[in-house]
Amino acid sequence: MRIPQITLSAIIILTTQLSVFSQNQTNFQKDSTMLRQIFDETLENGRAYEDLRSLTKDIGARLAGSASADMAVEWGYNKLNSYGFDKVYKQEIEVPHWERGTTEKAWYTDTDGNIHQLNILALGGSVATEGPLQAELIHFKTREDLQNAKKKDVKGKIVFISQPMDQKMIETFDAYGACYPIRGLGAIDAANKSAKAVIIRSLSLSEHPHPHTGTMQYEDGVTKIPAAAISTMDATALEKHMITTRGVTKLMIEMNCKTFPPKKSHNVIAEITGSENPNHIITVGGHLDSWDVGEGAHDDGAGIVHSMEAARTLMALNYQPKNTIRVVFFMNEENGNMGGKTYAELMGQSNEKHIAAIESDRGGFTPRGFSLDGNDRQLKLLLSFTKLFEPYLLQQLEEGYGGVDITPLKSEFKDIALFGFVPDSQRYFEIHHNANDVFETVNKRELHLGAASISSLIYLLDNYL
Amino acid sequence: MRIPQITLSAIIILTTQLSVFSQNQTNFQKDSTMLRQIFDETLENGRAYEDLRSLTKDIGARLAGSASADMAVEWGYNKLNSYGFDKVYKQEIEVPHWERGTTEKAWYTDTDGNIHQLNILALGGSVATEGPLQAELIHFKTREDLQNAKKKDVKGKIVFISQPMDQKMIETFDAYGACYPIRGLGAIDAANKSAKAVIIRSLSLSEHPHPHTGTMQYEDGVTKIPAAAISTMDATALEKHMITTRGVTKLMIEMNCKTFPPKKSHNVIAEITGSENPNHIITVGGHLDSWDVGEGAHDDGAGIVHSMEAARTLMALNYQPKNTIRVVFFMNEENGNMGGKTYAELMGQSNEKHIAAIESDRGGFTPRGFSLDGNDRQLKLLLSFTKLFEPYLLQQLEEGYGGVDITPLKSEFKDIALFGFVPDSQRYFEIHHNANDVFETVNKRELHLGAASISSLIYLLDNYL
Repeated sequence: MRIPQITLSAIIILTTQLSVFSQNQTNFQKDSTMLRQIFDETLENGRAYEDLRSLTKDIGARLAGSASADMAVEWGYNKLNSYGFDKVYKQEIEVPHWERGTTEKAWYTDTDGNIHQLNILALGGSVATEGPLQAELIHFKTREDLQNAKKKDVKGKIVFISQPMDQKMIETFDAYGACYPIRGLGAIDAANKSAKAVIIRSLSLSEHPHPHTGTMQYEDGVTKIPAAAISTMDATALEKHMITTRGVTKLMIEMNCKTFPPKKSHNVIAEITGSENPNHIITVGGHLDSWDVGEGAHDDGAGIVHSMEAARTLMALNYQPKNTIRVVFFMNEENGNMGGKTYAELMGQSNEKHIAAIESDRGGFTPRGFSLDGNDRQLKLLLSFTKLFEPYLLQQLEEGYGGVDITPLKSEFKDIALFGFVPDSQRYFEIHHNANDVFETVNKRELHLGAASISSLIYLLDNYL
Repeated sequence: MRIPQITLSAIIILTTQLSVFSQNQTNFQKDSTMLRQIFDETLENGRAYEDLRSLTKDIGARLAGSASADMAVEWGYNKLNSYGFDKVYKQEIEVPHWERGTTEKAWYTDTDGNIHQLNILALGGSVATEGPLQAELIHFKTREDLQNAKKKDVKGKIVFISQPMDQKMIETFDAYGACYPIRGLGAIDAANKSAKAVIIRSLSLSEHPHPHTGTMQYEDGVTKIPAAAISTMDATALEKHMITTRGVTKLMIEMNCKTFPPKKSHNVIAEITGSENPNHIITVGGHLDSWDVGEGAHDDGAGIVHSMEAARTLMALNYQPKNTIRVVFFMNEENGNMGGKTYAELMGQSNEKHIAAIESDRGGFTPRGFSLDGNDRQLKLLLSFTKLFEPYLLQQLEEGYGGVDITPLKSEFKDIALFGFVPDSQRYFEIHHNANDVFETVNKRELHLGAASISSLIYLLDNYL
């Protein structure tokens, strides 16, 4: 391996050195100077961290349809107005309205008669138990095992799926994606076998006492049964019991969560008007709503302050964008994505040309790069920024997902370039959708480096896309 | 910029694709399979996190010369013995012995007569105040300002240097390096102007209440004056007072730290004997000692468990190294580096050939790559691993520092390749040398990914160096 690899590395070194000379030096110098100014401004004067403190501590958790979400809309509108954008406005949308309710309890009784309480969270959208629900528990190690089970063995029981996220995957979002159907479709699978309810091991990579919530689905024609997540610690303990005393342990569960009629809410939008192409739009955003546990600090308070700070930095440097830079605080990403869908629909009906959108919804951790959902020309453009991004350790420039909120824009603008901000993912799934997602888990430098990275990409896209 | 850059990126893409085919496929497949097995073993069965819990909670802070350091030596010896190495032994060294003592207090009085207490830590090696020491305070924004000051203005006063670490530097170790002389040489600079004592702003990138300690030096023929660090929060507040009421604020300080005669201590060493070249040595290590505040979790408990786990993983996979893999727990990196110096001396007198050394002493954060202190051939070799490291996001492969403990080996073995493990550096300097450096700040996945990265480098060096 050594010799050919050395040849390769030699070529790479050569290419890299060549590039410095082969590039348009004037532009490269201008752009690298601008990126340095962007990072300096954000690292020295950035507001993202204090804005996030305010969003998480003055508002807190903010599930779409709640009073907190309404206050978050006011917070966003006022905050954006304080930064001197050319335009700040709200965009009305309709959002689902589900409430966790006041009771979420579960216990299991082992064969020795010992009673163990479980830390549970109803999955978002779950029906209630309508009072105490007690039944025999049946354990499946995977969703596939449940799908392959005999209906008579599952009928009338409560299903427990203990499948953990795969520790071996380096990119934790891959491990999340692999387990997502357990949470999203487990209630349908269990109901298809006539189960009374389903509980799943929380989608998390760490063992801790807090259950992780998240969306789940029902299917027309399939009975809607209650669905909850239990903490990874409880799941590990319960699985041990089930393996030694399979099928005989009873579970008692009560949840009084409820779905209400849809409510009006808003996306919150601010713009820096383009000096050359005011109706060419570069959207940058995150989602303003969060789940109703923790404080929505990394998911997605970070994306909100990233987007606002990225634009604030450009304004602080008196940068006049050629295209319109539009900051969008999307509402309802977590349980319906009505903000993203409505925004795309309305933009499709407008005379605007949407050339790019950037989403930050993977946390406020140390930046690693950007993923592109776009075409080859756009990928080449992204890779052409390699040398400019190098000093800021933005080394992961690759094809990939943009983000839930901006993906609907693709159906309206087929040539749009969708970028996802890619921070380090290792800590995300111990914080995601649970009580751990609080301001204290966010690091100021990591957050501000992310904002500066996004600001730099906006600048480069504004000039070269 | 766009067109030439696209050309560049096109070349890079081409090169990358070419490489896949140009490489020796057999070796590349074998090596990439081995790296995958290494990461799987560490991520699924790694012991590093629980070993670190034991080192930080059962032993805790462990300054060289203390009983805790002696217990850490026992801990390391027993722990290494539990992993089935071919050899485990201690290497006797002599270490300095300094103790913080029981009193560390400081107050300043503002011009309105308000008394403010300061959170202080004596710098390692500082002399005591010999009872209460009160004097006028004189403030300098930088070390240079102090060096340029008139002796008569400084004489008899306590010097305060408020220079902060530079937030704008992306690599935080660069910002640390730039401020290091303030802590290391500030007492000499101040004594040269006949000051009574010196206090400095803690070398940290975050504003918090805990002062950061660290080494400092005296110079023969220059009066030894007491030196302490105050917390960044206190430094910011005190600087405000000094700017508005420069020179009139009084400071009272008392510290009863003390230097004792040198003591015996040990490096702790374990080996997997090389099957082909038993006297060709690849050293991997971190330092077992820590400062006497916090728990020495990131600095350098992480390096200790990284090194042990990297070797454990290779043994768990039944890998038979061609060269001898030697794990070294170095003692006394923090205040004398007697472990590193003695190890190098003794090895220089042996008949061993030291081909490489790897040090982990930058924390247990998410891995970013390796830095090499070596020659061009070794750099090309490191770069030749680019494709193998890609799936594990080891993207920073560059020339740079190896580490304090292994650097003395260079004077004995001029062709040795010294590698520093490079984790993400953004959080390091809020944890470094202060009460924040506890087990709870370490993330299990980040720590285990680091161990697997080091294990992978050992494997590749064993085969291709």
